[in-house]
Amino acid sequence: MMKTIRLSIIGFGAVGQGVARVLLDKKDLLEDMGLDFRVVAVADSRTAVVDMDGVDLNVALSRKRDEGLVGSDRIRGIEIIEDIDHELVVETTPTNIVTGGAGLENMLVAFKNGKDVVTSNKGPLAIRYSELIKTSEKSGTRLRFEATVGGAMPVLNLAREVLAGNSITNVEGIFNGTCNYILTRMMEEHAPYEQMLAEAQELGYAETDPTYDVEGIDTACKLVILANSIFGMNATYEDVTVAGITRITPEALLLAQNDGYVVKLIGEINDSRINVAPKLVPMFHPLAVGGSLNVASIQTDLAGPITVTGRGAGSIETASAILSDMISIYRD
Amino acid sequence: MMKTIRLSIIGFGAVGQGVARVLLDKKDLLEDMGLDFRVVAVADSRTAVVDMDGVDLNVALSRKRDEGLVGSDRIRGIEIIEDIDHELVVETTPTNIVTGGAGLENMLVAFKNGKDVVTSNKGPLAIRYSELIKTSEKSGTRLRFEATVGGAMPVLNLAREVLAGNSITNVEGIFNGTCNYILTRMMEEHAPYEQMLAEAQELGYAETDPTYDVEGIDTACKLVILANSIFGMNATYEDVTVAGITRITPEALLLAQNDGYVVKLIGEINDSRINVAPKLVPMFHPLAVGGSLNVASIQTDLAGPITVTGRGAGSIETASAILSDMISIYRD
Repeated sequence: MMKTIRLSIIGFGAVGQGVARVLLDKKDLLEDMGLDFRVVAVADSRTAVVDMDGVDLNVALSRKRDEGLVGSDRIRGIEIIEDIDHELVVETTPTNIVTGGAGLENMLVAFKNGKDVVTSNKGPLAIRYSELIKTSEKSGTRLRFEATVGGAMPVLNLAREVLAGNSITNVEGIFNGTCNYILTRMMEEHAPYEQMLAEAQELGYAETDPTYDVEGIDTACKLVILANSIFGMNATYEDVTVAGITRITPEALLLAQNDGYVVKLIGEINDSRINVAPKLVPMFHPLAVGGSLNVASIQTDLAGPITVTGRGAGSIETASAILSDMISIYRD
Repeated sequence: MMKTIRLSIIGFGAVGQGVARVLLDKKDLLEDMGLDFRVVAVADSRTAVVDMDGVDLNVALSRKRDEGLVGSDRIRGIEIIEDIDHELVVETTPTNIVTGGAGLENMLVAFKNGKDVVTSNKGPLAIRYSELIKTSEKSGTRLRFEATVGGAMPVLNLAREVLAGNSITNVEGIFNGTCNYILTRMMEEHAPYEQMLAEAQELGYAETDPTYDVEGIDTACKLVILANSIFGMNATYEDVTVAGITRITPEALLLAQNDGYVVKLIGEINDSRINVAPKLVPMFHPLAVGGSLNVASIQTDLAGPITVTGRGAGSIETASAILSDMISIYRD
C-alpha cells in the first residue's frame, strides 16, 4: 500500500536543495517503504513554484542554480503553507535566533492549518519551543527537528526511540563543528586561535563573522532544544551559561595534552543547569573526537552512557536527518 | 488505552534477572506508554514458576538468589513456550555458538506457536539466522535482538530506525569489551598480554578460559548477526576471517602510540568481506575508545559516518537493550 504525502519545501538554500536531491535519490527506497513523498511546492525567499502533480525537482534545482530563483511567481512561503493543500511542511529557511524569523511564523501557521512540520531551523525552537509544541499538539499535527541539533548526528531520535525505557540524567557533547575544527587544529599545529580561525574561514568551516559559532551561541541554542525536548524543561537562551573558545591558547592545549587531555567546547545539560564552556576531556574518552565532528553523550539509568558521533553540518547530512524524521512520522 | 502483553522469561541467569529487575523498576514509565508487560512464566535451566495473573518478580528474584532455582516445579522452558498462552518470549538462556543450544529450539518453537521473541542469545542468530527469520516471517511473529550485539550499544536499532533512508556501505567497530580492556591496559601500563589478561580475569572482565573473547570468536559471531541483519547477507561463522589479540606485544602498542595510533581489535563488514583483526586506529578517531567500551561506526551514503559507543556487557545494560526492543515492538 503506497501512502502519498504531499509536502512543501519552504526555504531553498543549501539544506532545502539537499532535501530535494535526497528525495530524487531515494525515490525507489522510499517507495519500497510504501512512502511516496510528492513535493507540491518549493519556495525560496522571493519566489515559488507550485505543481499539485508534483514539482519536477531536477528542474527546480537547475533553475535555482542557474537563475538564483526557483520560480517566476512572487509567492511567499507563508502563502503556500496557508493556501496549498498538503500534509507536510519541510521548513528550511535561514535561522534567526533573536526573533525566530520567517521560520517561526511558517511553523505556527502550518500547525494552525493542520500541517506537520519537519525542520532544520534552530531559531524558532530555541526561542519559542513550548508555544510551538502546544500549537502543534492542539491541532494534532507533528513537529520533528532532528536536523536542528548536530546535523546528521542522530541525538534526538536516539534518545526518543532507541533508548526508550531509559531515564536520561545528563547530556553532554560537542555541538559545534567549527569550534571543534579550530581547537583540533590548534592542538595539532601548536598554533594560535586567530591563525586556525583564518584557516577554518578559508576552508568554509567558519563564517566571515564567526561570533555565533566561536562564542558558544550556536551550542547554547542546540542545548536549549535538547533541554526542552529530552528533559521537558521550559528553557530559553537566557537560561544558558555561555563561554566560547576565543581565549584558549596553544600553550593551554599543550599543557592539557601532556597530562593526557584535550580541550573541547562542551555543552552540558543536567537537572540543575545548562552550560557551554571549554573543558578538559581525557584523550580516549568517547567525547574526545577530532576534526569538525559533533558528539553527544547521553547518560541513562539503565544503559549507562551512550555516545553518538557524526557530522554536524553539510547539506546532504542535514537533509538525511530531515528524511529520517519524515520517515519516522509516516512509516507504519 | 493500556495494552497488556503476556510474556515469559526463559533463562534466569544474569540477563534474565536483569530483565525482571528492569520490569519492576520501569513499571510506571511503561504504563505511561500504555504498556503493561505481564510476566506469566519464568524458567531457569531446571525449574519454572507460572502464574497467569502475573508472576511476583520480587519473589522470583529472591528465590533464585536464596535457593538457586526460581521454582519448585520441574518444567522446561520449551514446555512453557508451547503450553502457556502468552504473546512474547524473552529468550535469555546461555549461548551456544556451535549447536545454537536450547535457545535455537526455544525461538523456533516460539515462532511456530505464534509468539514474538526478544533475545540476547547470540548463538542461534550467528548459526541459523535465515532459518529463524523465515520461520518468524511465516508465522507473522517478530524477532528482535539488539542485545546480541554490543549489549547496551544500540547499533541495530540505530541502523534500522534512526538512519532510515540511508544505505549502509560499511560497519566497523570494537564489539568485545574484554579485548578492549586488555589492550587499553597493556598500553597504559606498557605491560604484556598475559599480565593484563590476569588482571581482567581478576576483575571479572574475562573468563577463566578467555578463548572465546581473546581469539576474536565473540566478535565474529556479532559480525555475522550484523552482516545478516543490516546487509541482508546469508553469512555464517565460516565466512569470517578471524585473528585475535594474544600475540600483540606492549612494544607494538608503544610504537603505534608514538605515531599517534592505538591498537584495537576491529570487526569490519563491507560488501566483500567480514573480518576480525587487530588494527591501528588514529588516536582521536571516534573508534579509539578505551576501557571496556564497545563502539560501532556505520558508514552511510547520506549521513556520512555515524559512530555509537556504549557498554557492551552487564546485566542491566543488556536488559535495557531487551526492554528497548520490547517497547519498539508493542508501542503504537
